Amino acid sequence: MPINTAFKLKYDSITLPENILALKAQAIAARTAILKMTSLAGSGHPGGSLSTIDLLLSLYSVIEHDPRNPSKPDRDKIVISHGHVSPAAYTALSLNGYFELNQMISEFRLAGSIYEGHVEPCVPGIEWASGNLGQGLSAGCGFALANKIKGYDNHVYVLMGDGEQQKGQISEARRFASKFQLNNLTAFVDYNKLQISGTCDSVMPQDIKAEFLADKWQVLEIDGHDLLQILAAIKSSRNNAVPTLILAHTVMGKGISFMENDEKWHGQTLPYKAENGCDLVSALAELNQPDDFLHLQELRAKFTSGKCSLPHTTNPDLPVISGKHINYEQKTDNRSAWGNALVDIAEHNNTGEFLPLAVFDCDLAGSVKTAGFREKYPQNFFQSGIMEHHTVTCAGAFSQAGFQTFFSDFGVFGIDETYNQQRLNDINDTNLKIILTHVGIDVGEDGKTHQCVDYLGQVRNMFNFKCLIPADPNQTDHIIRWLAAKNGNYLVPMGRSKLDIIRTPEGDIFYGDDYVFEYGKADLLRDGDTAALFVMGTLTNKALKIAGLLKQQNINLQVWNVSTPQQINPEVVKQAAATGYIFTYEDHNVHTGLASCLQAELVNLQLAVKFKAFGVQNYPVSGNSDAVYQYCWLDPETVSSEIIDIIKG
Amino acid sequence: MPINTAFKLKYDSITLPENILALKAQAIAARTAILKMTSLAGSGHPGGSLSTIDLLLSLYSVIEHDPRNPSKPDRDKIVISHGHVSPAAYTALSLNGYFELNQMISEFRLAGSIYEGHVEPCVPGIEWASGNLGQGLSAGCGFALANKIKGYDNHVYVLMGDGEQQKGQISEARRFASKFQLNNLTAFVDYNKLQISGTCDSVMPQDIKAEFLADKWQVLEIDGHDLLQILAAIKSSRNNAVPTLILAHTVMGKGISFMENDEKWHGQTLPYKAENGCDLVSALAELNQPDDFLHLQELRAKFTSGKCSLPHTTNPDLPVISGKHINYEQKTDNRSAWGNALVDIAEHNNTGEFLPLAVFDCDLAGSVKTAGFREKYPQNFFQSGIMEHHTVTCAGAFSQAGFQTFFSDFGVFGIDETYNQQRLNDINDTNLKIILTHVGIDVGEDGKTHQCVDYLGQVRNMFNFKCLIPADPNQTDHIIRWLAAKNGNYLVPMGRSKLDIIRTPEGDIFYGDDYVFEYGKADLLRDGDTAALFVMGTLTNKALKIAGLLKQQNINLQVWNVSTPQQINPEVVKQAAATGYIFTYEDHNVHTGLASCLQAELVNLQLAVKFKAFGVQNYPVSGNSDAVYQYCWLDPETVSSEIIDIIKG
Repeated sequence: MPINTAFKLKYDSITLPENILALKAQAIAARTAILKMTSLAGSGHPGGSLSTIDLLLSLYSVIEHDPRNPSKPDRDKIVISHGHVSPAAYTALSLNGYFELNQMISEFRLAGSIYEGHVEPCVPGIEWASGNLGQGLSAGCGFALANKIKGYDNHVYVLMGDGEQQKGQISEARRFASKFQLNNLTAFVDYNKLQISGTCDSVMPQDIKAEFLADKWQVLEIDGHDLLQILAAIKSSRNNAVPTLILAHTVMGKGISFMENDEKWHGQTLPYKAENGCDLVSALAELNQPDDFLHLQELRAKFTSGKCSLPHTTNPDLPVISGKHINYEQKTDNRSAWGNALVDIAEHNNTGEFLPLAVFDCDLAGSVKTAGFREKYPQNFFQSGIMEHHTVTCAGAFSQAGFQTFFSDFGVFGIDETYNQQRLNDINDTNLKIILTHVGIDVGEDGKTHQCVDYLGQVRNMFNFKCLIPADPNQTDHIIRWLAAKNGNYLVPMGRSKLDIIRTPEGDIFYGDDYVFEYGKADLLRDGDTAALFVMGTLTNKALKIAGLLKQQNINLQVWNVSTPQQINPEVVKQAAATGYIFTYEDHNVHTGLASCLQAELVNLQLAVKFKAFGVQNYPVSGNSDAVYQYCWLDPETVSSEIIDIIKG
Repeated sequence: MPINTAFKLKYDSITLPENILALKAQAIAARTAILKMTSLAGSGHPGGSLSTIDLLLSLYSVIEHDPRNPSKPDRDKIVISHGHVSPAAYTALSLNGYFELNQMISEFRLAGSIYEGHVEPCVPGIEWASGNLGQGLSAGCGFALANKIKGYDNHVYVLMGDGEQQKGQISEARRFASKFQLNNLTAFVDYNKLQISGTCDSVMPQDIKAEFLADKWQVLEIDGHDLLQILAAIKSSRNNAVPTLILAHTVMGKGISFMENDEKWHGQTLPYKAENGCDLVSALAELNQPDDFLHLQELRAKFTSGKCSLPHTTNPDLPVISGKHINYEQKTDNRSAWGNALVDIAEHNNTGEFLPLAVFDCDLAGSVKTAGFREKYPQNFFQSGIMEHHTVTCAGAFSQAGFQTFFSDFGVFGIDETYNQQRLNDINDTNLKIILTHVGIDVGEDGKTHQCVDYLGQVRNMFNFKCLIPADPNQTDHIIRWLAAKNGNYLVPMGRSKLDIIRTPEGDIFYGDDYVFEYGKADLLRDGDTAALFVMGTLTNKALKIAGLLKQQNINLQVWNVSTPQQINPEVVKQAAATGYIFTYEDHNVHTGLASCLQAELVNLQLAVKFKAFGVQNYPVSGNSDAVYQYCWLDPETVSSEIIDIIKG
């Protein structure tokens, strides 16, 4: 990848002596803004912002970007991984024309302002929300990979702190970047050698350079406050076969004598005036800048925050063709139905030149049934190894590039291990579809470490994430096709076992060609007036068996399959409650899943009925699926016998 | 640390030619058992077990251990990180006298048997449950660190797979081991160069040796099937200044010609007889071992599984003196009360020679208020850097060594980022106290990435973890002292702000000297008969403000502080329901916290009342705590006005 012409022109211009002088002047203006905004807010992170600002200003002076069109597709991207340097990030954007400086300074960290404490993508020019450390390099990998696949000649820059190099996820991202030869990715470490508790060497010794070299990166060491060195490193990194780390030796608090090399200023702001002279007034004097602090205070006082209307931006759906339902008449596993639907949808959308789908895998393609897709569309299949933290963030960033992006994994790895990465993705409004196989105690012999019985509880802990739970292969196919064009974050959990096809009492296929999946709709599988049972996912077949067993005792069980437990139609709950008994039946932690969703709705409707929840009450055991259900009192015989006891007293 | 005499005697003996021959014979018996048990179960992981078994047998031949007393305190410990090689682990234990071989073989992976699919500590000799990859080295660090602190001259061995080296947590553990000079720790990588999807090189290229060297480990490369080389490496690793990695080049499926170097056998078992000859019969013939498969099948058929009585082993409490309550009369933050209680408890328990307390920190001691403990007891304070995944696992393992172990961190890092590590700890019956500061939107300016509003939802997703939520500094002090001697896993979340002291209507301190914390007891802060409000944690003060505002409208609000929402006394719920209105008020996701706990109890009691939950409904914003509450409709004025609307229609 040779250096492109636009970059070269900018580089040649900015390195002219008079322009370097102008950049130096901009750096002084930036330091001034950083100190004012943090002092004004009385909170924030000035030390690291002063240490990282020269890198940011140098970058904006040469990269491809347009403040009037921050989301233009062929822009270079900057990811701020150490999100607490938001003062530096916002200031650099402002000085580059993205928004008015004094307004930003005055609103920083005010409730209702876009200028939040850690960088947020609601600010024009911010590509990725961070604040939880160690995730930015993975997001950068996602952006860089998407650019490569699309053939864009753009570069992605990731700025990181030095303390966060301790996070394991960064080692995963390093490997991924090497494997996929992301030479359109350049990372900076703002290496000021201080973290909150003292020097990095005393907190956790680490040879950052050796680690990146071990993972086959190019490493350039520079003085991170020497603008010409920074620019030369940026240039060098754009013309290299492997990803580049620019290890930028910097100084915490750089530019203000009494702040330099003191970790105190990581998260402490300058008072306006202090007796010891360590204050904003002195700092402004040292920078030779006027003091308009009182004016800014007035501006700040004028800002009015509203109350939160709690909006969630729903991005438009993707132009993905869903294809036609595959009808299953024979017992099979939901995971195979997912894999088949994926390949079928891909066939409908493959133009030969571009396929708007992507699949990320963590070494489980065979089990999670994405191997078929891998064989046919290897260029859209990303083998990411046993590196789930990285993969979720990387796939999340990638998903914003117009690909319908799937990450398929076992339940415990795909949500339990990666919950916080999913949460950050959700905050970033990503478009990721998590397809989990091997959830529930249905997993069987692999035992408790592998039995994910909290997937719904985890999704309910996030705000814009939805869980869609298929009951059989036919419903799986419908749900995957419904999802195919949807934007947003969804989780589709499945068990491992082969399942019978769900049928009507008359023997017709329930989720056949005519079924239409609708978010929030529960399905009445069996009608009955003695009691009602709500079920989801793998256990749906067993619920029908329970209905059959109860029928023999003249108990007519109403059976509802709930595939979207986060939203249950109140009319359905009323209809069920009218029987006088409601039961829930789930291959999930009994406290945080289907029963809990239903309890919320019952209370909401002020309905008092006899209620019992059948679900998982402790870490399960290892054994074949049916034996484990039996061991955990969840086999149809035990449940139906308990129901009989309750109803017949 | 010179090699101890017991080890040297064993080493000198086992390396005699006749004893090496016996060890080789044992390895053949072990391979036979591994193949039989996996074929019998029809599931499990024979390939890796055959690759790792020579390492295990060599280890047991020289380490300090006693099959008649598997938990003797001065034993060497073996942690199996790649838990799927349970057939190798169980077989090695069995051949070393821990339990009867054929019984183990016949019960493998049967529901109700201790011989679970992935290694579990209910099996004598197994130190740590694994199965989710990448955590074992962290557990080994915890054990090794505890041995060092206690002055034990014992060694900890961690066996890992090669694929799992891709997990970032391992890089964190490597750094920790180096920092704390854990030369009593030796790690093995079973380097057969194959993982599920193919060669490690094709899945995710990695230079394992370079990575360990970058983190200052000693690396020994050996043939992992050459017993003398293995033994020599073990010996060498016991006499070294830094931790040692033994990179053992091995062969997947080693010992059976048709299984060697084929990744298919990672998770696939040999059929008894197959047309192509790739079967158990051929394998036994190659090993020159008799075929008693049918006999074993009969044994297996005789095993009867019960149903799960869902017991949870409660370990005895620790001999820790709780000390005397510190009474706070002035507004302060709960985190300071936690830090003060910690130091005070330490003072009561410090014998000068031994302090049965430990604190782990991830670079936030100043904010989470453990800095006071750090200053006074640096030898019991472990600075673990920004490496939360590692730290939770390491502290979990460490907590089993008789120390009351605290890990204090911000909410999002201490539970959201590390949920799966906590879950594995819970499965391992650890004894870890997670003290979270900076939970809720009370965190304020740091914004949504830092506002942990799901801590209770996360704890409810686990089975033996309890959440204790203090309302003010006085209750914080009581709760920390109550915890001081308790065994098990607890999470204590706190906000960031200074809080008023909660008082009775008469102005007396509510959580004063006479208060006794009791698990499951809710506290009636204000009596009233118009409506009832349940609150927890940071918002308790604001709930009292609401009661005051409502009083002006002649609404008498019953206010309950619930510090243990996972268990709410039914009598309390009845008393509240008798008012006709129940409200919940929480600085937490409204779907998964206090409201949800109460809804479960209301449904359970079949109580229909007017109910409204006030809580967090979307990712919050950045701003000062009170402004964010207001922005999210959770300030006392908004809530009381909504309550008035509901009650007065």
